[in-house]
Amino acid sequence: MPDQKTQNAHNVRLAIENLEGSLIREVAESNIGREDVIPLWFGEPSSATPKFIKKAAISSLNDDQVFYAQNRGIPQLRETLADYVSRLHNKPIGIDTLTVTASGMNAIMLVSQALINQNDNMVVVGPVWPNCCQTIQVMGGEARQVALHPDNNGRWQLDMDELFSLCDAKTRAIFINSPGNPTGWVMNESEQRSLLSECKRRGIYVVADEVYIRLFYDGKKAPSFLDFSEIYDPLIVINSFSKSWSMTGWRLGWLTHPPELGDVFSKLNEFNIASPTTFVQHAGIVAIREGEKFITQMVEDYRHNRDLVFQRLAALPKVKMSRPEAAFYAFFSIDGMTDSLEYAKHLIDTTGVGLAPGLAFGPAGEGWLRLCFAANQDILSQALDRLEPALS
Amino acid sequence: MPDQKTQNAHNVRLAIENLEGSLIREVAESNIGREDVIPLWFGEPSSATPKFIKKAAISSLNDDQVFYAQNRGIPQLRETLADYVSRLHNKPIGIDTLTVTASGMNAIMLVSQALINQNDNMVVVGPVWPNCCQTIQVMGGEARQVALHPDNNGRWQLDMDELFSLCDAKTRAIFINSPGNPTGWVMNESEQRSLLSECKRRGIYVVADEVYIRLFYDGKKAPSFLDFSEIYDPLIVINSFSKSWSMTGWRLGWLTHPPELGDVFSKLNEFNIASPTTFVQHAGIVAIREGEKFITQMVEDYRHNRDLVFQRLAALPKVKMSRPEAAFYAFFSIDGMTDSLEYAKHLIDTTGVGLAPGLAFGPAGEGWLRLCFAANQDILSQALDRLEPALS
Repeated sequence: MPDQKTQNAHNVRLAIENLEGSLIREVAESNIGREDVIPLWFGEPSSATPKFIKKAAISSLNDDQVFYAQNRGIPQLRETLADYVSRLHNKPIGIDTLTVTASGMNAIMLVSQALINQNDNMVVVGPVWPNCCQTIQVMGGEARQVALHPDNNGRWQLDMDELFSLCDAKTRAIFINSPGNPTGWVMNESEQRSLLSECKRRGIYVVADEVYIRLFYDGKKAPSFLDFSEIYDPLIVINSFSKSWSMTGWRLGWLTHPPELGDVFSKLNEFNIASPTTFVQHAGIVAIREGEKFITQMVEDYRHNRDLVFQRLAALPKVKMSRPEAAFYAFFSIDGMTDSLEYAKHLIDTTGVGLAPGLAFGPAGEGWLRLCFAANQDILSQALDRLEPALS
Repeated sequence: MPDQKTQNAHNVRLAIENLEGSLIREVAESNIGREDVIPLWFGEPSSATPKFIKKAAISSLNDDQVFYAQNRGIPQLRETLADYVSRLHNKPIGIDTLTVTASGMNAIMLVSQALINQNDNMVVVGPVWPNCCQTIQVMGGEARQVALHPDNNGRWQLDMDELFSLCDAKTRAIFINSPGNPTGWVMNESEQRSLLSECKRRGIYVVADEVYIRLFYDGKKAPSFLDFSEIYDPLIVINSFSKSWSMTGWRLGWLTHPPELGDVFSKLNEFNIASPTTFVQHAGIVAIREGEKFITQMVEDYRHNRDLVFQRLAALPKVKMSRPEAAFYAFFSIDGMTDSLEYAKHLIDTTGVGLAPGLAFGPAGEGWLRLCFAANQDILSQALDRLEPALS
């Protein structure tokens, strides 16, 4: 007889039964495809993958790159990634520290599998894209959220003492998403240095989700732990092709990790997916080698969108927001609004604009809404025209 | 300070550190790409994905099917799968029981995540492809192998009493791979009925890995639990596009499960990979709709290969094997051979033929070797020419 304390009526683990589904999906799912709704709820560019990347996938398919690949990714992709991250962070980073994954999401799952035994915990800086927390819970662990606090100008700030007060003997890692989704928060290098050094002292990992590192409006890239870390530091960095190369539906990402973890991630890839789709990996090579012009133009477009959205939303008396320094989200609070889930649903009915409720990103997000501005500017203007009266 | 009993020196879980890597990879990895070696070690067709499937992927890419998809898979693919399995099993099977996954491997990982709390166990019928056992260990559970026994004719037999003697209060499922890799064992319907009925009585799942169901040499398909199961039975069936449609590198599979598990697998997909590669899913639709002729021809080719390999290997006095009824493996023992890993490495050096060591499939596989005959017939003949003197 199954133990009723650990499994539900269908003999599924309670830890899985109790996983909170995505509240963004709760708002969006029944409204997907509605022609009268402008969907700005997901974190996804509205423009498709650029042609040169699609062409690379097609040529790889025609080349019969359709067989199983190496567990840590095809060697040419790992070499290309090594070149790319070495250039980006201005120091040699070898392929022994790189493992290709089937998306940033899957990379986060592999990290939780590697680190989290039952009852272990990870401290997660929020508001944050919630899925990292659920991977911890899938492993029987606990996600402890420490909240960023908006200062008087609406700029998000991390209190490091508060963060470490949540750590105990069962803490295996600190999860940092900078540039941050949904806040646009960017951790500066001095904060990163002191966080990594304290984690090193405590023997716990920094797990840095840096998928928005290239979507930065004040330079070529946002500050990264990899800019100053040393090879054996307890640091695992997650990255993805989804945002920087507009490849959300492709499912391709990578991990940068201490070389001793190579075997761990090789095995975990084998037992999770074997290896990401082979011809997608070949397209990834071309994305990186030929993608810089595309990224530059995309960031330029997003910067215009950011300015447009910030000017118009921040001008509303009931709205509080800071100008995002990175990523492609406007995250704003509304005076007196206390139920973001209901409010986001209500906005769809009254304005036909689809936003993500702040609560989806943890308790610190309640009272806030997220708008993804990775959209066509005309559509964005139209969405703002509709939102302004409702938010005034 | 990390607890030294649960984490290794790099603060990685001991359960992960201790995962046995693939012994097939141990034989193959350093010899991949050697022109003098005939590689029959992996379970992979040597011929590439058929053109009509590649064309479907290309047209889907040109159509910009490159965005995030629904967590349980795109609706058209789930509908196509529902049609397919309904026809295959001769009864209506609805899309509410179907979830698309990023490969059969990933499907197995999702099942272990759904069912296995720390210290739970799953009983696995072996010799078997080992990866299902490692997914259980990743979740902190225990994989208990019950061995099939070869009868005097070398035909593998399951002792149901032995199987259930391994079950206890922490047993969440029985894992059955029929048709079996590496044995070619096919469980018959009466065995399947009594297994499912006993599992129902005990409140544990049958997890049936049926990825070889179409590679059957005595009819259109091998017996399946889905032929007679009822919708609310504790049954989860794993399937994949890899073998039947020659799509190993594409990473696409699916689960058939009780409808109440739909939300569970939807959430688990979200937190593992979001959804398989979107344009790969579109290609999957075409694979199923237009693939029957391809499958028929492929099985015909494999049947010839099977006969060739069986005739020549079984004729050797030191070799014991039964004629595989399904799948594409010759699994054979050699008199006096007790270290299959060393022997497989030795065979590469002496004959240039790459086989998989039986030990890779569990303790019951020691003394055996696996040859994948999903290869070109001339290549197979050449491999047999080289093997015969060595095995005599």
